[in-house]
Amino acid sequence: MERPNVTFLSDYGLHDEFVGVCHAVILRIAPRASIVDLTHGVPSFDVRRGAITLQRTLPYTAPGVHLAVVDPEVGGSRRAIAIRVAEDDRMLVGPDNGLLWLAAQRFGGVVEAADVSRSAYRLEPVSKTFHGRDIFAPIAGRLAAGLELHDVGEPLDPDAVEPLPMPMAELDGDELVAHVLAFDRFGNVMLDLEHEELTAGVGLRLGDRVEVNGVPGVYATTFADVAPGSVILYQDANRAMALAVNRGSAQDVLELVPDARVRIRRA
Amino acid sequence: MERPNVTFLSDYGLHDEFVGVCHAVILRIAPRASIVDLTHGVPSFDVRRGAITLQRTLPYTAPGVHLAVVDPEVGGSRRAIAIRVAEDDRMLVGPDNGLLWLAAQRFGGVVEAADVSRSAYRLEPVSKTFHGRDIFAPIAGRLAAGLELHDVGEPLDPDAVEPLPMPMAELDGDELVAHVLAFDRFGNVMLDLEHEELTAGVGLRLGDRVEVNGVPGVYATTFADVAPGSVILYQDANRAMALAVNRGSAQDVLELVPDARVRIRRA
Amino acid sequence: MERPNVTFLSDYGLHDEFVGVCHAVILRIAPRASIVDLTHGVPSFDVRRGAITLQRTLPYTAPGVHLAVVDPEVGGSRRAIAIRVAEDDRMLVGPDNGLLWLAAQRFGGVVEAADVSRSAYRLEPVSKTFHGRDIFAPIAGRLAAGLELHDVGEPLDPDAVEPLPMPMAELDGDELVAHVLAFDRFGNVMLDLEHEELTAGVGLRLGDRVEVNGVPGVYATTFADVAPGSVILYQDANRAMALAVNRGSAQDVLELVPDARVRIRRA
Repeated sequence: MERPNVTFLSDYGLHDEFVGVCHAVILRIAPRASIVDLTHGVPSFDVRRGAITLQRTLPYTAPGVHLAVVDPEVGGSRRAIAIRVAEDDRMLVGPDNGLLWLAAQRFGGVVEAADVSRSAYRLEPVSKTFHGRDIFAPIAGRLAAGLELHDVGEPLDPDAVEPLPMPMAELDGDELVAHVLAFDRFGNVMLDLEHEELTAGVGLRLGDRVEVNGVPGVYATTFADVAPGSVILYQDANRAMALAVNRGSAQDVLELVPDARVRIRRA
Repeated sequence: MERPNVTFLSDYGLHDEFVGVCHAVILRIAPRASIVDLTHGVPSFDVRRGAITLQRTLPYTAPGVHLAVVDPEVGGSRRAIAIRVAEDDRMLVGPDNGLLWLAAQRFGGVVEAADVSRSAYRLEPVSKTFHGRDIFAPIAGRLAAGLELHDVGEPLDPDAVEPLPMPMAELDGDELVAHVLAFDRFGNVMLDLEHEELTAGVGLRLGDRVEVNGVPGVYATTFADVAPGSVILYQDANRAMALAVNRGSAQDVLELVPDARVRIRRA
Repeated sequence: MERPNVTFLSDYGLHDEFVGVCHAVILRIAPRASIVDLTHGVPSFDVRRGAITLQRTLPYTAPGVHLAVVDPEVGGSRRAIAIRVAEDDRMLVGPDNGLLWLAAQRFGGVVEAADVSRSAYRLEPVSKTFHGRDIFAPIAGRLAAGLELHDVGEPLDPDAVEPLPMPMAELDGDELVAHVLAFDRFGNVMLDLEHEELTAGVGLRLGDRVEVNGVPGVYATTFADVAPGSVILYQDANRAMALAVNRGSAQDVLELVPDARVRIRRA
């Protein structure tokens, strides 16, 4: 018999017992489950960052139950949901705040959904602040143990699942207008721009000089290709475009904030 | 065949290889064990904080072998012990310094104990400083692999296990006198006060105004219920009472130290 | 059937999803694998520190596949390798930059090697920066799933595997000349000196006064044995000699840098 696959992503961090308790709850319900911690280092309450990380990591995981908790409105009125996506029979569990949206789109969209906010499988009494332990982990455990969506909650129209509004890069004359999705802790900047859009849009080739919001830079593959302090436009390990400054912070040099426009053109 | 359940809590942190080596030692002895890391972020040498966290997390775990290491006197004369508690056939392994005490009480108290300080199953040569690897993990592994307490050490009178002295909240006229158990890294304050004691003791209801050591506050459920800077008395995710300051540190605002008295009354 | 044992050591840290994705990749290929994270807190790009930690932790692990990634030249010309060592049928996977060398020597040296840089089992497209996910984890997974070295890469002369140059302590008259291998985050200093060399070389016994680069100290077993601020020469939990300063930093007090000479004599 196969071990059911569970993945877990959150903004809980590893200082406290939150992640450990969720593991315990899942394994008590589904003792054979294999749990992979994708990351618990999502910046606190950063739903979009969590959604992007989930979207980018899930294709590397075995199909199964995918638990994600970044939940700034815990204890409020947002729904708790479990969804099934079109491909691989994957099931995702988390708050209905857009967190699961990008990953669901990556696998063909939501085909079935359940509202588990008042599921009979919650751990009672349900706390106001730790729904990971009291709602999401028990539901993920039940699904890993073989229950179906309709067993663990009330049916929900798949179209009622909250989308995640995202900016979209577009061509404007000879410029590509991209946007800042997120920063990493080195000040590197994630853009809403795929490699193919860049090459198709403005015909850039490796080594070409570029202007990024008017600042000169290079379209390069590694930091070693440019002088310290220079702006680099590069393809990150997830094949999305990103900005860096060799031995510096692109966030600071380019004075960027989340969602800021980034105009890219050949120099 | 079931996978034996092991949980592990410590103050080792995750910077170094200490936790990984203990996992390796346990799995070498009990290859089928499922190990849940409850947390390794207990503040260094803080036995009481470790004991409280163990007590609060263990009810969420499957019965099994529960390893805990917060051990400021490692290499000194304190015993290494393995104990069995009254409920669930759970076995706990760790230093005999009070760390296991609260969790043992939570499960009906100690019914059998062994001194494993000189167990034949230690890893020789035993280091002066890393008994997690050399004593506690091998003993936990042997118990997970099916040995009994009397196999892994010398019989010990259950009454000889070190208790953990704890303050106790009490009623004083129209005030409840609680004590500071611990702080989290946001400056929130854990009290030795259960929700029932609060409502029974001074008849507080949600939304009531309170005085905490003379400072005005509110008995509320979420930070959103009060103005920034205000003191909040709330029930934490483990159903114990705690103090916070919205966007601030209750520890600083109330000038509290560990074990300090906290006088609570209706305002 | 046994669960194949995999260990994993890296400098990836736990803030990001790097470690989680590698776990996912391994388990997708080898669903029954048991993965032990030895540590992911190796200082960034510190190959020697990673090599020492791998050498010191591997003897505690069950034989299996041992994945290690500390890879400052990722995307450059260094090979990716998988090797088999003389003892225990252990296989090691990682960059060919010396990282695996000390551990291989600990188990009798390299007896078989494969260059996996262009393995058919890489995940395509291979990124420039995340070979842990795209090369090393898939190879480790294949080996855990039962493939042999010759299945996963091109044969490589075992003598062609990169060694790790290490300093070597030696006797110079009545002094032992050791070297600084690494520092921990408390400023404690790891030396290239085993306990036996110390006692044989200069006949030291516990409690003896010593001079370390001219600074007075004590050969002691615990920090409690000396006054605050004093230099302590002690045997660490891995039975290697180390320097500490009680409530201070030996690195700072002795003004040491990596590879610096440390002259030890009886005082």
